[in-house]
Parts: sequence; structure tokens; C-alpha cells
Amino acid sequence: MHTYRLTFDCPDSIGIVNQVSTLITEHKGWISDASQHSDDETKWFFSRIEILADSIDVDLEGLRELLTPLAESLNFNWKLEDSTVPKKVIMMASKATHCLSDLLDRWHSGELNCEIPCVISNHDDMRGLVEHYGIPYHKVVIEKDNKQPGFDEVERLIKEYQGDTIVLARYMQILPPTLCALYPHKVINIHHSFLPSFIGAKPYHQASIRGVKLIGATCHYVTEDLDQGPIIEQDVSRVNHRNKVEDLVRLGKDTEKLVLARGLRAHLEDRILVHGNKTIVF
Amino acid sequence: MHTYRLTFDCPDSIGIVNQVSTLITEHKGWISDASQHSDDETKWFFSRIEILADSIDVDLEGLRELLTPLAESLNFNWKLEDSTVPKKVIMMASKATHCLSDLLDRWHSGELNCEIPCVISNHDDMRGLVEHYGIPYHKVVIEKDNKQPGFDEVERLIKEYQGDTIVLARYMQILPPTLCALYPHKVINIHHSFLPSFIGAKPYHQASIRGVKLIGATCHYVTEDLDQGPIIEQDVSRVNHRNKVEDLVRLGKDTEKLVLARGLRAHLEDRILVHGNKTIVF
Amino acid sequence: MHTYRLTFDCPDSIGIVNQVSTLITEHKGWISDASQHSDDETKWFFSRIEILADSIDVDLEGLRELLTPLAESLNFNWKLEDSTVPKKVIMMASKATHCLSDLLDRWHSGELNCEIPCVISNHDDMRGLVEHYGIPYHKVVIEKDNKQPGFDEVERLIKEYQGDTIVLARYMQILPPTLCALYPHKVINIHHSFLPSFIGAKPYHQASIRGVKLIGATCHYVTEDLDQGPIIEQDVSRVNHRNKVEDLVRLGKDTEKLVLARGLRAHLEDRILVHGNKTIVF
Amino acid sequence: MHTYRLTFDCPDSIGIVNQVSTLITEHKGWISDASQHSDDETKWFFSRIEILADSIDVDLEGLRELLTPLAESLNFNWKLEDSTVPKKVIMMASKATHCLSDLLDRWHSGELNCEIPCVISNHDDMRGLVEHYGIPYHKVVIEKDNKQPGFDEVERLIKEYQGDTIVLARYMQILPPTLCALYPHKVINIHHSFLPSFIGAKPYHQASIRGVKLIGATCHYVTEDLDQGPIIEQDVSRVNHRNKVEDLVRLGKDTEKLVLARGLRAHLEDRILVHGNKTIVF
Repeated sequence: MHTYRLTFDCPDSIGIVNQVSTLITEHKGWISDASQHSDDETKWFFSRIEILADSIDVDLEGLRELLTPLAESLNFNWKLEDSTVPKKVIMMASKATHCLSDLLDRWHSGELNCEIPCVISNHDDMRGLVEHYGIPYHKVVIEKDNKQPGFDEVERLIKEYQGDTIVLARYMQILPPTLCALYPHKVINIHHSFLPSFIGAKPYHQASIRGVKLIGATCHYVTEDLDQGPIIEQDVSRVNHRNKVEDLVRLGKDTEKLVLARGLRAHLEDRILVHGNKTIVF
Repeated sequence: MHTYRLTFDCPDSIGIVNQVSTLITEHKGWISDASQHSDDETKWFFSRIEILADSIDVDLEGLRELLTPLAESLNFNWKLEDSTVPKKVIMMASKATHCLSDLLDRWHSGELNCEIPCVISNHDDMRGLVEHYGIPYHKVVIEKDNKQPGFDEVERLIKEYQGDTIVLARYMQILPPTLCALYPHKVINIHHSFLPSFIGAKPYHQASIRGVKLIGATCHYVTEDLDQGPIIEQDVSRVNHRNKVEDLVRLGKDTEKLVLARGLRAHLEDRILVHGNKTIVF
Repeated sequence: MHTYRLTFDCPDSIGIVNQVSTLITEHKGWISDASQHSDDETKWFFSRIEILADSIDVDLEGLRELLTPLAESLNFNWKLEDSTVPKKVIMMASKATHCLSDLLDRWHSGELNCEIPCVISNHDDMRGLVEHYGIPYHKVVIEKDNKQPGFDEVERLIKEYQGDTIVLARYMQILPPTLCALYPHKVINIHHSFLPSFIGAKPYHQASIRGVKLIGATCHYVTEDLDQGPIIEQDVSRVNHRNKVEDLVRLGKDTEKLVLARGLRAHLEDRILVHGNKTIVF
Repeated sequence: MHTYRLTFDCPDSIGIVNQVSTLITEHKGWISDASQHSDDETKWFFSRIEILADSIDVDLEGLRELLTPLAESLNFNWKLEDSTVPKKVIMMASKATHCLSDLLDRWHSGELNCEIPCVISNHDDMRGLVEHYGIPYHKVVIEKDNKQPGFDEVERLIKEYQGDTIVLARYMQILPPTLCALYPHKVINIHHSFLPSFIGAKPYHQASIRGVKLIGATCHYVTEDLDQGPIIEQDVSRVNHRNKVEDLVRLGKDTEKLVLARGLRAHLEDRILVHGNKTIVF
């Protein structure tokens, strides 16, 4: 289904929906899906509207022009996307295979509407599988005592491949703040705990020591503050006294890959609006 | 928050939202919440809109008059409700206390916006608790070999108390079709299985024999076909080989009361639209 | 089913089960349920055994005498309980009704094998319901600026009623360390977050600010360190951007009461062994 | 950890555990894990015991000989397995990639202790990925009007590769009863519904028509009766009115692959005992 996806947020006021829908209706646009949300506390309005591309009498650029004056008058933060233009997702991984392998299968079977121009890793473990899928694989070593050159190369590759989304599929390295700042709300990480519990390193060890009865995973946008970015999706699974740390690690993988895949899919479908440090996921 | 709640469904077409929102905006109505859904297969449109009562320049009846011509032209099935007018919910129970006790506590603590004009039961077990909450309790025996007189009395009581919603909180009797027909989409039942598994009597025994690893509960509107009405809400809980039938019964209670409470709350907030044998729960 | 419940933990070694089972078998004891666990890291062994009382040729005291030499030679921490002797559970509550109301219904319907000699609260809100169930209700005010006299009275009441278990059913007051120390692993609290997230006051507010996608509850034994005691049970429920703090509070109640009930039931059935700050729940 | 795994079931009687543990202890066997279960209804006893291979003074065959007289006297159905001898799992798949891709990644990363001597499929879709992992791939077409020759070839391949476990990873063909009968409790299927709901073809279509609010998947041993074999594991995921059949198919995949992986892992670890049409999963 070819659609134009309008997402916007703005100060709440009377008649926002009406003004937008009037404009779309005047141009014969068929709204196939619409979601909206008013945040009482901050008096802010959020919306996501899908318009059938075949129904409306303007093209994407035409619609963008039509919407611009309205967006300005209502103080929109807004985006207008074409559902048939896939995002370019650079995947970054380390040694663990579960998240990347899962995403590649989803992509290959058509479940994730994106391109994967390349995979970047600081190890060679995943090269074979990635190249099996016909995707370029770049090993970029991050030297323990001199990380910047490696990250410079990562940044160069992202630009070269024109990546617009970066997925840290258990990448295990902390991106430098300058790189994060270049891609706000475009770097997606999977953290292997139910944040804000167990921030930082070795969350499963921390979980085992505390004796929790559930372990979780959190998909979030990366910001300059470690593990503090806006949460997109979370889930948990049950553990018990029989599970050692290595069992938590293994059991946690299932939640990690599921939560990351859900979060990425929402991102690819332009379902996520960020407000402060929180997300609205339509 | 005092709102008017408009719910409607109709054949899908271009500009429905726009026409409704234009009308509301012209009368200065502030839409505090809106949900919509298009069913591709049946080309049907569903919506629920909440309008702040203080914002709009007409009262409930005025709004109803304004909407009527539009509703007719667009072939709406529609309702317009005032959020401050509680529904009148007749609760029916048998011997098991968990569902009714749970609903009474929720009602008492203000979580369920309704009146409970009376409780009807074929046993006396719950009388004390119900009367503790100041609610009239009617024991109406349903004779095994002559059920109609009992159900006639039930029907009379519902009318006397002007009940508009009937909750079968593990009532254990099958309402006669004539009574069901009087209250379409207004009789809410909790069935103690994950329908359509284990229809009919003793679902936990059936579940134990089949050796399932999850047991469930289903909240649905009652129709003339036993356990076949539109499903409102379902949930499950995990069981294992250590659980005997009596454990399934006990563990199942937690799911039953939770699922029934969620379903009833959605009903009280006018969140449920029925289409054929399926529900849209906004 | 009348059973004797033996629970013990000790340094792990060869033949522990064999020595215990030999002793029980020699006295014709029928083991109806047995669980065991070896902790690799600490080299510690845990077990819970239920013996049919009618099968064994000694009574509880006789069995205790038989086991004592073995328990000494193997360095057991151990307990031997009679399943027909209910624990005496003092419930403590504040204004919120959901947990206490739920526990009372479970107790009344026979799901919780315990006595409830009294309920203590710093408010009068629950008096009616508690007295409806025929349980003494004591209001003990905890003065903001002088809490000790109140807690002295609480301690006096627990002793007077010979309580052996104390349940803080959303009691909202922090018990003084001296009182906690009197009842180690016998004071059960429900905390309204997925610990260790959101320790301390107003966890739902904290959760709302952080924008989590799941909220949780934690049942744990109370120690002198606030919200740091051994975790017995946890669970979560899904929330989204539409849920305000007041919705989190409401939705969280369902998880709280479920998690507390599960934790208390495990305690009443002598299923919980504490090791360091962690629990083994058989 | 190298262990010998003893699993057995037998008529329940006094002292079973004691006799087994005495024998193991006499030979200095260290029991690292033990589970047991008594079924009250059928008076049947089930147990699984892991013994550290390095601790006991006999080898696997020696232990088998020691246990044989006891097993005969107590009427055991029993197995004794060496944890370091991996099972040989023949995977069978069709066009859908999600289950097989997931299992291959788990196997490759060491999570599943088994060999995969070959994959058999009636299509070529998965050849590339399977051969990437260095596993032989056999395409065996099952002709619509003449299926037996294809299944004869399947049977031949299983024998040639000495498969002892067969996984139907969304194979989409019904194995002939003769083949099922050759491998009792060794053919593992994933059915894409929460059985016994939606037996047979197109369960997601059935689920959509019924309007359920959860969809599920069931891992079970295959018997001659379609979708009726002993259930090993089940799980569900939440759906709503926005989800079309194609969404149910997509969302269901996540549950399918998770449930199948859990079921297979339990099988590989000899955790599953079958009793009648039910499983005990230790």
C-alpha cells in the first residue's frame, strides 16, 4: 500500500485535526490510518496520518508545499515520508549473533521495509552470514586506548553509504557524543536490561546479584547520556533461582532480539514521535 | 473530566473525519481524545471521539441534534454519551466470590464509573459482602427443571432497577435467548477458558486433559449462541505439570477477574464497537 | 492433604538427598513433593520435602527429633512445619483498598491457608470491610513528627496477637529497623515498581518521567535497607503514551495485588528459602 | 558440565527416590540436578536426575547395568543419556524462513546442543542459508497427487543420516502415519495456533474470523492424529482490531520461533517425559 505518512507534534489547540483533514480532503486524500494523542500535562498534540498516495491529487512534494503554511501557523515539528522509499539502515554488531541474525532474516523475508547498505563490526564473526545475504561487511577495529580513529572510520562509512538510521545490534561499544549528535533519534540501541534498572556494563550480572525474578531488554534512541535516551520498547521474561548468569544471558537474548525488531519496525514505519525524553509510539 | 463521547461506525468513504471534526470545531468543541479504524476487508469505518463538554457551545441534546443529519447522510450506527452519566450495571453471581468481590472493590474505590443498582444471585453466599457495600441483593433461585420462572424474575428485576448493562460475574447459568435478545451488546460474560478452546462446561477439566501449558479467560458479549459472542478481552497464565485441575481453577481466577474488569471498564467508557462478531476496542 | 514440610539449606556435598530420604523411608514416610537446588557458585544446597503425615510412623515432634542429628551433622538451616497449622498473618494497610480487599477475598474463599488475627492501619478506611469478615481492626496513628509511639503500639499488637507473619499491604509507612529485626524473613512488602527501578517514594511518577513501557511490582521480604530485601516475586504490565501517572497508579494496582498474593501464598506454603539477599522459591 | 541424565517414570510407591539415590551415592555419584513429580490422579511417579560423570565410579554402560535390576523391580520406563553425546536433529522446512533461520543461529552460537546432519525441504528457498552453515540440504518434492514417493525419500534420508530427532520447522506437510510411528516422541512440530484452538489449516485466518485478542503457537510431539499430540510448550502474543490476517501471520512468527526453540531445547536436554497425551517438562 503506497501511502504518504505525515507525523507532527505541536502545541495543542482547538481544530488542529480539522485543519489538517480539511486540507487533505480538499485534495481528495483518503486517510487510511490516523492516530493522535494529546498530552494533558505539557499541552502538546501528536499525530500520525497515512494518506493513500493514489487518492490525493498532488505528489509528495506538492503535499509538502500544501502543508507548509499550515505547519508554520500551527508550529509543527513535522515530517512527511513516502512509504515506498525505504530507509537506509546501517547495522553495527560485535560478536554476539542473535540480534543481527534475527534482523537479517526479517529483512530478507520482507518484514522490515528498509535497505541495509552495509554492516559495520569491530570483529569478523558475522562476516560470513552478512555476505551470504549480499550485504557489504566492514570490520572497523576500535582500539582500546585510541578509539577515535575507529569511530572516525565508522562515521565516514555511514556517510559514504548514506545511512539515515543506525542500529546498534549489541554493538558493545559506546558511540562518541559527536557521532550521536549527528544522528538525533536515528541511532537505535538495544540495552540488555529493563531500564532504568542495571544501567551500564554487565546488566545480567547485576540482575543475578539482585535476585530479580524477571529480566528485560530496552530498545531506545541513543543520546549522549549512556542508557538514558528515549525508550521505544521494552519487554521482560521470567527467570528463577535455577538460572545462573549464563542462563540469564541466554534467556535475555530472546527478549533482546524481539524488542529490537519491534522498535526498529516502528521506526521504519514512522510511528515514533519523541517528546522530551519520552516517545509516543503510534 | 466531563466529556461527550461520540462513537460511530459507517461505510468507509473520503472525508468522514473531516466532516465530523468540522462540525465539532465550528461549535468550539475541544477534542480531547480520538481514535479511528478502517477495516480494509469490509470497507467499514469506526471512530470514537471525546469532546470536552465545557468547550462546546451546545449541550448533549444540542450536539445530538447537530450530529443527526450528518449521521444520516453517512449512514452512522452511532451513540453519544455523557461521561458523567454512569451506566447502571446489574451484577449477577453464583457461589464463587473472586470476580464480584474484585469488581465491588474497584467500584468502591472509584475505578469503575458506574452504578450498581443491585446484585442478583441464585445463592446467598455473597449477600453479606454486597450488603456491606450498601447494594441491594436479590436471591433468585433458578430451578433445575423449571428455569423460566427464575429468569422471568431476573428480567423483572433488571427492568425494575433500570439496568442498562448486565455483568455475569461467573453466574454459571445460561441466560435464555429471549433475555439475551433484550440486551444486545449489553450482557458481559467471563468465560473461564481461552475461547474458542474449551467451550461449554468445565473448561479447566478439559484443559487439564489436553495438557495445555497456558490457561485463559475470555470476556465477551453474550449472544444466543453459547460462548460464541464477540470477544472483548482475553488473557492467559502459565501452568505446568504440577498443577492439578483444582490448581487450574485457582490460578484461572486471577485471569478471570482481571479480564472481566478490563472488559467492563472498556464498556463503561464506551470504548467497544461491535462489528459482526468482532469488537473494536479503542 | 496433611503433610509435614521440611525445608533446609546447607553446604553442598555428596549424598544429602540420600541421607534424608533414607531416614524418611525407614519410617515409612511417603514423599508427596520434593524440590531441590544446588547453587554452583556458593556450593550450597537447598531442598523442600513434603511428607504425608498419615504415612510416617512418627508425629511432627518425633520427626523433628529424628532429623536433628542429621541436620547437625550436615549443618542444616532447617524448618519442619505441619501443613495443617496455619500461620498467623497480621495485615497492615493504609488507605488504598486493592491489596487488602484482594487478600481478604482469597483468605475467605480458602485460597490462603492462614489465620488473620487482626488488621492494623493508620487510617479507618478499611474498617468496615475488615470487620465484615469478622477480623479485629486496629487503627494506630503514626504521627509524622513522633513515629515511635505508634510503632511501639504496632509491635505490642503483633505480639498480643502472636503474629508470625506481617504483610504490608500498601502500608505506606517505613517500619523502624528494630521492628524489622524482630521478624526476619517474616515481613512481606509489596513495592509498586519493578525493583531495583524506582526505589523509594512515588515510583509511578518516576516511571512516568522516565517513559518506561512496562510498569511493575515487587514482593519482597523487608530488611532494614529500604526496598533492598530479598525479592520473592515480580511482575509487570504494559503501558503506553496514553497513560498518565494516575493511569499508571490504577494499572499498577492489578500487578501489585497479584504479585503480593503470589508471594504470600508461597510464604504460607513454606516454599521460600532465603540465601544471602536472594530467594529460592520452590 | 559432563553429566549422565537419568529420566524415568513408574508406578508411584514409597522409597523410589531413596533406592535410586542410595545406588548413586554408593558409587560416589554427585547429583547436580534432580526433579521429581507425583501424579496423584494416575498414581505415577516421574523423575529426572543429572549425575556428574566425573564423580561416579562407573561409566555410562556401567551405570546402566547397575540401574537395570532396580528399573525392572520398580517397573521403570527409563532412559540414561550422556550429556556430551549430542542428538542428531533432522530439520524439515518449507518456504517460511523464520523458524529454521532462528534455530540455525541458536545452533551455530552453541545454544542448542545437537548435530544437524541435514535439512530436508520441499522447496529450495533455504538452501543458501543452510549451506552457508555447512549443512547438507536436500530438496525432496512432495507431489500433490502422489506423496508417498517423496515421503519414502524423506524416510530414507533420515535413516541415512541416522537422525534421532526430527523438527518440523513450519514444514507445512502432514507426515504419513507410518513415518510418525517410526519416531514416537521424536518428531517435534510447531503449530501456529494456541491448540486446541484452530486445529488444521490456516489457523490465523480462523483466528481473525473469531476475533480473538491473543494469538498463539504450540510446540508438540507429532502423533498420527493431526495437531493432537502431547503439548510441550505454548505461548501467545497480543493482537488487536488493527491487525489483519497478514499481521497475525507476521506477529505469530515471533511466538512460533520462540516456542519451537524452547521445546527443542527441552527435548535436547532430556527434560520432557510423556505420559499418555501429556508432558512433564522438568
